[in-house]
Amino acid sequence: MSDVVTAAMIVIGDEILSGRTKDKNIGHLADMLTAVGIDLKEVRIVPDEEDEIVAAVNALRSRYTYVFTTGGIGPTHDDITADSIAKAFGVPCDYDPAAYKLLQETYSARGLEFSEARMRMARMPVGATHIDNPVSTAPGFTIGNVHVMAGVPSIFQAMLDNVLPTLKTGTKMLSAAVSCPLGEGTIGGPLGDIQKAHPDTIIGSYPKYAEGKFWTELVVRARDPQVLETARAEVQAMVERLSTPVAR
Amino acid sequence: MSDVVTAAMIVIGDEILSGRTKDKNIGHLADMLTAVGIDLKEVRIVPDEEDEIVAAVNALRSRYTYVFTTGGIGPTHDDITADSIAKAFGVPCDYDPAAYKLLQETYSARGLEFSEARMRMARMPVGATHIDNPVSTAPGFTIGNVHVMAGVPSIFQAMLDNVLPTLKTGTKMLSAAVSCPLGEGTIGGPLGDIQKAHPDTIIGSYPKYAEGKFWTELVVRARDPQVLETARAEVQAMVERLSTPVAR
Repeated sequence: MSDVVTAAMIVIGDEILSGRTKDKNIGHLADMLTAVGIDLKEVRIVPDEEDEIVAAVNALRSRYTYVFTTGGIGPTHDDITADSIAKAFGVPCDYDPAAYKLLQETYSARGLEFSEARMRMARMPVGATHIDNPVSTAPGFTIGNVHVMAGVPSIFQAMLDNVLPTLKTGTKMLSAAVSCPLGEGTIGGPLGDIQKAHPDTIIGSYPKYAEGKFWTELVVRARDPQVLETARAEVQAMVERLSTPVAR
Repeated sequence: MSDVVTAAMIVIGDEILSGRTKDKNIGHLADMLTAVGIDLKEVRIVPDEEDEIVAAVNALRSRYTYVFTTGGIGPTHDDITADSIAKAFGVPCDYDPAAYKLLQETYSARGLEFSEARMRMARMPVGATHIDNPVSTAPGFTIGNVHVMAGVPSIFQAMLDNVLPTLKTGTKMLSAAVSCPLGEGTIGGPLGDIQKAHPDTIIGSYPKYAEGKFWTELVVRARDPQVLETARAEVQAMVERLSTPVAR
């Protein structure tokens, strides 16, 4: 029997919604979760507004095994993620002694003032545990099933590398791709028939358009390798049959 | 007085959530809406599942001036957007006579069979109006305040170009960036003070990390050009003051 572990992601940041910054974290998280056998089921991008963050966290943490957030954990006034997560969980947000000490030592060693702004990065919901940040010290944190990480891609990726080994993972969703030189209109009927005959697979059809011509990437997904291969072979045979000059 | 027009986006597709396809439409829509004075307030990426699409459409269409969707309007079995939107609006999904005729003529002219799969692309919620598709004919559609477009970026962009001139737009959110050679920890305090002194602006601080060093992009946003310039000048002066060797 296969074991399904699900996840959602919340990207926090006005700069993504205004277009000024182009998100690079969604695709990375999707790739990493797929690789370890966790199904990413939903992503929300929300602004730097407490009510919106609280609503998204509470809507998603009860529905999915894990929630991952990116953005808003820095030292400036627009970094309101820690307070918002605390509010979502109904706990205070306060200076974490271990994070405070870690940051104090780091800035002291660098000869920089441990300013009030920098102290903000030690704040987290009471009861949260750290996610180590090997890039720039200030930790992310985990509370309940919610993992709160930085928005800067290199830091997010390093934090995620620290979180992933701690998670429960499911039976991996396997996939096999069949490249199809025909447009979706030609293969749509027979492909639908193959999907119906193989209900334990998810067959996706992704139209590509380049140089005035359509082609299609067909992707079969399943958790069982034999189920996957049987359906993939039928898709491959269908593409070959329809690609012969006579059938076209 | 400024006039605020808001929007949300729904990206429909398992392939984005699995990481197989990297979304290119969110950033484009964000840029285009910002350019015409519509505030993108939320984005959701949902799987190819009717219940999820219906829930997202109904949650967002009542909250925002406009909703834009991408993906799931092709001819294959996994293209369930038209049916899902119809269900969200409580209307039937049926073959649209004008879309049917348009597609029939196009395939006839190309010497291709007007297959049942291709006919699917003429289906839309009853009462919807077309969004022209200059790239590959099959139209998107608008029903109520929801604009339903293709997921293939070149087609999405062409459809959006047709939709944007039909929309009500608000007073544009203007922005000005100040590049700051200092990390957020150094400027966080004084920047927060400037934000407090200028409540009609939104001041964002975006940490960048490259070659082992932090720098920061500071962005001031406001709808009034004079309000924007006053706050921008203060941010610029703050950065210059803190960047002098003495202050560092």
